[in-house]
Amino acid sequence: MRRAIRAASTEAEVRKALVLLSGGLDSATTLLQAVQDGFETSAASFHYGQRHSIELDRARVLAERYCKKHFILRLDPILFQNTALVEGGPEVPGSRDIDDSIPVTYVPARNILFLSHALALAESHNFDHIFIGVNALDYSGYPDCRPEFIEAFEKMAALGMKRGVEGRPVRIEAPLLRLGKADIVRLGARLGLDFALTSSCYSPGPAGQPCRVCDSCQLRALGFQQAGLKDPLIDPD
Amino acid sequence: MRRAIRAASTEAEVRKALVLLSGGLDSATTLLQAVQDGFETSAASFHYGQRHSIELDRARVLAERYCKKHFILRLDPILFQNTALVEGGPEVPGSRDIDDSIPVTYVPARNILFLSHALALAESHNFDHIFIGVNALDYSGYPDCRPEFIEAFEKMAALGMKRGVEGRPVRIEAPLLRLGKADIVRLGARLGLDFALTSSCYSPGPAGQPCRVCDSCQLRALGFQQAGLKDPLIDPD
Repeated sequence: MRRAIRAASTEAEVRKALVLLSGGLDSATTLLQAVQDGFETSAASFHYGQRHSIELDRARVLAERYCKKHFILRLDPILFQNTALVEGGPEVPGSRDIDDSIPVTYVPARNILFLSHALALAESHNFDHIFIGVNALDYSGYPDCRPEFIEAFEKMAALGMKRGVEGRPVRIEAPLLRLGKADIVRLGARLGLDFALTSSCYSPGPAGQPCRVCDSCQLRALGFQQAGLKDPLIDPD
Repeated sequence: MRRAIRAASTEAEVRKALVLLSGGLDSATTLLQAVQDGFETSAASFHYGQRHSIELDRARVLAERYCKKHFILRLDPILFQNTALVEGGPEVPGSRDIDDSIPVTYVPARNILFLSHALALAESHNFDHIFIGVNALDYSGYPDCRPEFIEAFEKMAALGMKRGVEGRPVRIEAPLLRLGKADIVRLGARLGLDFALTSSCYSPGPAGQPCRVCDSCQLRALGFQQAGLKDPLIDPD
């Protein structure tokens, strides 16, 4: 969970964080927040048969710029059936009213799996903190983006890991947890994020261009609009 | 957690369970317990660079005999550093006094990762129960074998998954949780387990023969001795 974090580390104490980096707007902002908080950052990204694998290319560029190491892990697509986000599943829906029901773009146990991999990397490669860009406001339909889930995950990890038993549990940091999309856009801008390096669309075109109709494109557009900023993916100049 | 389970299912209601199957004595006994409990069983096994990959061959044979499906998943060995159980880590220690400290054979976040994969499979392929062969008595040094971990994991999964939100959380069953090794050997025998199909050694010889000195071999030998039974791996007749 989000805690008060000192702004800079001393030379004697390098604080290492692993950031779950999809290449989307939220995880990119989260990465820059971790850098700003004074962490030495590394990133973990996942290939799991997602339709929007353009995100991974964006993650690579961001990681090259901001991270010491970039772990790219492959998950077997057999883990994820009946989701619109993976090839072979139902289609990504076009424009619809976003409500708090669980959308077809929900991916079974995805954040649980991502965070579990991050825990193993944390214990194997000495990261004290894991950053994840979940937010509960715009994604109220995804159970694995809620504060009570993040809290329960952190507690489970402390009980199930050597580090926890030794009194050095891995901390899960979710700095965007209670921010709306406009706040995230504002935060990203303040942190100097180049939004052109991110991708949010669930169903991008062959060159990575956003579809402009999926939930994720709609939310992004609304966020930029409310923040009074231009999205360079839509409106390059 | 272990709950009262009816002995048989009706034709109208097939109850499907996914069993984490390493091919060791404990997971094989757990599989047979799930079968005995009336579940239609499938299995999940993991290849993660473990030294004792002979276990996977045993898991395949057991799954062929008792399971509808067998998911074999590959985990990147980069997840697991500094453990004696993975190639490249420290050596598996020989004979030592087993105490309740965390042994070098601890694998970072292993059961968290195994169970997380099982959750995704459960939601994607409709398993209501996940069986895992952890036991807290003989493995008191492994934090991810303790009842409080299993309980916290189940709770986290209920909060983070669609199934949980819909009121059908995945149940984690750990039927061996409070059994000693001798009890497990007795239970396996009662369930008709062919012990020759299992492997427990952390550092087996090229043909799969047990080293007889690692923690796991010691515990197995003591279990058979206390149960008054012969281990066919040691004492074929």
